[in-house]
Amino acid sequence: MEKIRRNERMSAMMKILSDAPNRIFTLSHFCDLFGAAKSTMSEDIDILREVVSQFGLGELETVTGAAGGVRYRTKVRRTESRAFIGDLCQRLSGTERVLPGGFLYYSDILSTPDIVSRMGEIMATEYYAQSPDFVLTMETKGIPVAYATANALGVPLVIARRSSKVYEGSAVNINYVSGSGSIETMSLSRRAVKEGQKCLIVDDFLKGGGTAKGMVDLMHEFGVTVVGMTFVMSTAKPLKKRISGEKSLMVLDIDAENEAANVKPAFWLNGDA
Amino acid sequence: MEKIRRNERMSAMMKILSDAPNRIFTLSHFCDLFGAAKSTMSEDIDILREVVSQFGLGELETVTGAAGGVRYRTKVRRTESRAFIGDLCQRLSGTERVLPGGFLYYSDILSTPDIVSRMGEIMATEYYAQSPDFVLTMETKGIPVAYATANALGVPLVIARRSSKVYEGSAVNINYVSGSGSIETMSLSRRAVKEGQKCLIVDDFLKGGGTAKGMVDLMHEFGVTVVGMTFVMSTAKPLKKRISGEKSLMVLDIDAENEAANVKPAFWLNGDA
Repeated sequence: MEKIRRNERMSAMMKILSDAPNRIFTLSHFCDLFGAAKSTMSEDIDILREVVSQFGLGELETVTGAAGGVRYRTKVRRTESRAFIGDLCQRLSGTERVLPGGFLYYSDILSTPDIVSRMGEIMATEYYAQSPDFVLTMETKGIPVAYATANALGVPLVIARRSSKVYEGSAVNINYVSGSGSIETMSLSRRAVKEGQKCLIVDDFLKGGGTAKGMVDLMHEFGVTVVGMTFVMSTAKPLKKRISGEKSLMVLDIDAENEAANVKPAFWLNGDA
Repeated sequence: MEKIRRNERMSAMMKILSDAPNRIFTLSHFCDLFGAAKSTMSEDIDILREVVSQFGLGELETVTGAAGGVRYRTKVRRTESRAFIGDLCQRLSGTERVLPGGFLYYSDILSTPDIVSRMGEIMATEYYAQSPDFVLTMETKGIPVAYATANALGVPLVIARRSSKVYEGSAVNINYVSGSGSIETMSLSRRAVKEGQKCLIVDDFLKGGGTAKGMVDLMHEFGVTVVGMTFVMSTAKPLKKRISGEKSLMVLDIDAENEAANVKPAFWLNGDA
């Protein structure tokens, strides 16, 4: 095999690491792949760590110990998150997207990959420390962003359904009070999660918190700990939700009289981190 | 600014290009970012093209003309697709995943990011040449893989719903005959797509083809051309579907008597490409 140069090794390693966020690759893995010595690979990784940091492309971490190695995380700096979400808020504010009944149209935003993957990275950044075992969402609109978050965290996505399906096997069903006050059902396959796991809840919209509370209750049924909750958008009213401790990216205030939407970045995005 | 070395430029460029598949970046963009001359950037890109090809990480293309530049595509080689899908088929075959009624449980496969993103790359590989403007799926189970395919193609995802929703605005509803023979409704927001666009249909499961035919009819209502259809799994029976020309990744044959699933890679994966 022709000798592989540093710039070639580093480029390939960047791609391999960033394609599998939060997964640990051993040094030996890359030594074998590139036919290079451990000392050489360590130097490569040191330089790569600097590059990733300098260009705001995430974070490269060296993990020590028996299961040690190197892993890539898509950490987004707070200033960049705020700028990105600020731009989104501008696109969503105004009269154009307000629908009859005071609803906001943003389904397009929720399924455009470059926007969704960035939102997923921002959400994941906030919850790496909690090490969730999976991401839970309730069908339908939140699935892409929940998937993007799960991808950035390197964990599976689990989707709760509105009713049990024949192709999901035996399921746990619970009832919950929806935003409109009606009693709804939420269903999750028994095979989907295991007792003792940790879960991050991700969804597109938070109003009263009925659905979110339903997801929390569902996780209790499975003996799963909810380590965090994050939403693309929450409404300014009601201020008091049926859940607490959540992080939303944007806050929506609809002026029903003028049919105008006022969308702002959530307060926590102003903090340092 | 300190001078940026080739290995640093190339690693950062690899990450930026592969984060935005199928999007064209001008040479000037990278010249500005790295403070380098065009000739230098051209050399970087030539080397990067070799790296990407050598390690089977996709394809780097130089696009000439006024809107020219360089773009990354996640092209998966046919041999690798076949190997990956072959492994998946082994995991899905046997008795463990067969549910009462002869259904196969594979929801976990459909929402595990490293599997889903690879399936999306394989699907996108087949349809880059058709240049779809968006990917269409029908809620729910196919959403993650449709999103991953849309991401690899660099286009938006559009999700058809089972009923019209207040937060989707005015919608076009059509009726279609489902696999079980019942009449179902499919709904899509008027804002979601534009007349004259090209669409790639992606979904998780193809049996009789009723739902797929519904999506094709829905696109006709919008004046949109369907340039391709691809599914994670199709059933061996019925052999004749209500649609044709589709590409599925796997073929499912359920032996109801023995409650065993036989899952095989689709024939087209054996061809060269």
